[in-house]
Amino acid sequence: MKNTDELDQEAIETVRKLIKGIDIAMLTSVTEQGLVSRPMKTQEVEFDGDLWFMTMKDTNVYDELVHYPNVNVAYAGKSYVSIRGKAELVDSRDKIKEFWNIAYEKMLKTTSDDPNLILIKVKADTAEYWEMGNWTKVVKELMNKLTGKQSEESDINRVVDLNN
Amino acid sequence: MKNTDELDQEAIETVRKLIKGIDIAMLTSVTEQGLVSRPMKTQEVEFDGDLWFMTMKDTNVYDELVHYPNVNVAYAGKSYVSIRGKAELVDSRDKIKEFWNIAYEKMLKTTSDDPNLILIKVKADTAEYWEMGNWTKVVKELMNKLTGKQSEESDINRVVDLNN
Repeated sequence: MKNTDELDQEAIETVRKLIKGIDIAMLTSVTEQGLVSRPMKTQEVEFDGDLWFMTMKDTNVYDELVHYPNVNVAYAGKSYVSIRGKAELVDSRDKIKEFWNIAYEKMLKTTSDDPNLILIKVKADTAEYWEMGNWTKVVKELMNKLTGKQSEESDINRVVDLNN
Repeated sequence: MKNTDELDQEAIETVRKLIKGIDIAMLTSVTEQGLVSRPMKTQEVEFDGDLWFMTMKDTNVYDELVHYPNVNVAYAGKSYVSIRGKAELVDSRDKIKEFWNIAYEKMLKTTSDDPNLILIKVKADTAEYWEMGNWTKVVKELMNKLTGKQSEESDINRVVDLNN
């Protein structure tokens, strides 16, 4: 019998493997008009339950997350991963310098000391994924150990085989 | 000077080209817990402002769309496309038979006369896309001719170069 912490660690490890190498995620947020998404470069940091992105304070995504922090982060590659979570804007100069690399310099056309830079930290609540060649949806509650809820690992039985 | 209809047609044509060949889209919808997305097979129908997907009535996505029709459809491939729109559930046996092909039979493990099958029609309001090698975000209002609003084609000037 596995305890909650072990299940969380397994789920996090699985998601880490699935999203590794997918450089760009689609971050979906809520606006007054509806749902919008945009490609965001994934931080080159091992997934531990949090996802980190970098943006500028003068962007739409910044305003949207201030007003409505519920987001979805989707990865489409060999597998498809949907992460439901809450976004937090983190204005940490130290972390920005830690995460900074040449790719951001090219993307955001600025340097790491730009006060307009801001980090988006997405705390993953649930990860759902569809593994290639199988397409059974697997739902993992990632954050049980933080919320204190019972860990639940449910395999939806509908096998969706998208290989045609 | 182009009129609104011409701009819409151009925008629709551009999106059609960008999403052509991307078999799987991520459809994001709103749940009580937050935003969730799932891979959906794109209909093999030329994009004309509507996107069509097929699902089953006994799924979460069906319930979510009944309660909150605002969705986002994201395509990640050579380019990244975000389509904001409203979903409508269409229970048309004729259309299901028209769209039906062997891929759905494998995916949904059923036949085209299954009364549990239902179509999701997403009316695209706005398309935003990031073309490969350029990464300037382009926002297109697709549905102006239907809503009667002034057509607006805005190029956001931040060039986001994700090639590192």
